[in-house]
Amino acid sequence: MTYTLVLLRHGESEWNAKNLFTGWVDVALTEKGRAEAVNGGRLMVEADVLPDVVHTSLQRRAINTAALALDAADRHWIPVRRSWRLNERHYGALQGKDKKQTLEEYGEEQFMLWRRSFDVPPPPLADDDEYSQVGLPQYADLGDEMPRTECLKDVIARFLPYWEASIVPDLKAGNTVLVAAHGNSLRALIKHLDQISDEDIAGLNVPTGMPLVYELDEATLAPTVAGGTYLDPEAAAAASAAVANQGR
Amino acid sequence: MTYTLVLLRHGESEWNAKNLFTGWVDVALTEKGRAEAVNGGRLMVEADVLPDVVHTSLQRRAINTAALALDAADRHWIPVRRSWRLNERHYGALQGKDKKQTLEEYGEEQFMLWRRSFDVPPPPLADDDEYSQVGLPQYADLGDEMPRTECLKDVIARFLPYWEASIVPDLKAGNTVLVAAHGNSLRALIKHLDQISDEDIAGLNVPTGMPLVYELDEATLAPTVAGGTYLDPEAAAAASAAVANQGR
Repeated sequence: MTYTLVLLRHGESEWNAKNLFTGWVDVALTEKGRAEAVNGGRLMVEADVLPDVVHTSLQRRAINTAALALDAADRHWIPVRRSWRLNERHYGALQGKDKKQTLEEYGEEQFMLWRRSFDVPPPPLADDDEYSQVGLPQYADLGDEMPRTECLKDVIARFLPYWEASIVPDLKAGNTVLVAAHGNSLRALIKHLDQISDEDIAGLNVPTGMPLVYELDEATLAPTVAGGTYLDPEAAAAASAAVANQGR
Repeated sequence: MTYTLVLLRHGESEWNAKNLFTGWVDVALTEKGRAEAVNGGRLMVEADVLPDVVHTSLQRRAINTAALALDAADRHWIPVRRSWRLNERHYGALQGKDKKQTLEEYGEEQFMLWRRSFDVPPPPLADDDEYSQVGLPQYADLGDEMPRTECLKDVIARFLPYWEASIVPDLKAGNTVLVAAHGNSLRALIKHLDQISDEDIAGLNVPTGMPLVYELDEATLAPTVAGGTYLDPEAAAAASAAVANQGR
């Protein structure tokens, strides 16, 4: 027997469209992003992969993607769980900055280091910066865990406790679990599931709005197919290449 | 000290717009209904009444109303709880029928008896009717509690256990609680809160998309203001009168 886990990165956001670093800034979906989410729900119906429970971040682009996809799949009524541990990587002082401009200003090497290095975070964001989330009510309980910047290693460190404590129990109860989240929180999960090295994870990009299904061995939680299976593999491959080229 | 409870009836649905009896049929919001929900969220912000937790039915018109209102109020991230016990009254064999046509066919007396009598349900809906919900996965756990028709008394009987077990504890924990539900499940709650008689509840109509705020005494849970306070009282009075005249 296997457990079924579905990963869904939010559809295009207003800042994806503007090519800005977003991180924890709580931007909305674009119309295109909303359509992507609905399409993701329809793909789930076609594949008969119907979530019994959904986990989302505390950010509206993931929350609304989940709601739109589940409504399209007639699963709007399932239980919802949310955690900041599924949030996008905090991009530190890059939040709100233009990706192309940052590339030109700091050069290819520094830019790719910030975007894709495993353990080098961007400079921290000041608490009084207009793009800081310090003081928002949804993060009032975080205390010392409130990030001012994160690298992927940091995302993994705050994501894995939630995976173990909240998502795995839902899987082990026999539920098909949908995780509606972000490029980097999903990379953290995929790295863990597929045991990808700290180096190789840099080359992995998750496309927006494309359900990625993992069947996990019930004893080991190892994927039966490495990398999982996109419900629309051709569209996913094209979209994944586009993500890799952002800032160019 | 008081507890704060906010009631919100879903915005206009496709079948409100078509003047059909809806009940448990899971119809979507209209564009107008979506705008009503967003407006409800803005009213909460203006009044600084910000929910900490939301309870919804299992029906998409309430689920989506809650999501749109909370997104507009920047409270999209709060915990969500759902229960069939907050569903609209099951309208039995009237589900899917035109209100005006039903009025003409059965006459004023029978029509108002079905719409507003406390304890006379319409005839039951057949399980093989196109508008039956028997067999839907969201109701798989109901067993013998799955209704085929309901009067308001039945709605109260299945709503009150959820009020006591799930909503009251959230209030007593100090949360501002939003209940996003339906005309008749909210009438059941209002009847309970304001201790309205079985006769007088017939005259109470809840308008769509208008947040109704109750401050409840912490010891007795009695409203400090009978009937609560609409955040937009003039619009609520006009809309409430319109509900009373449906089918005319």
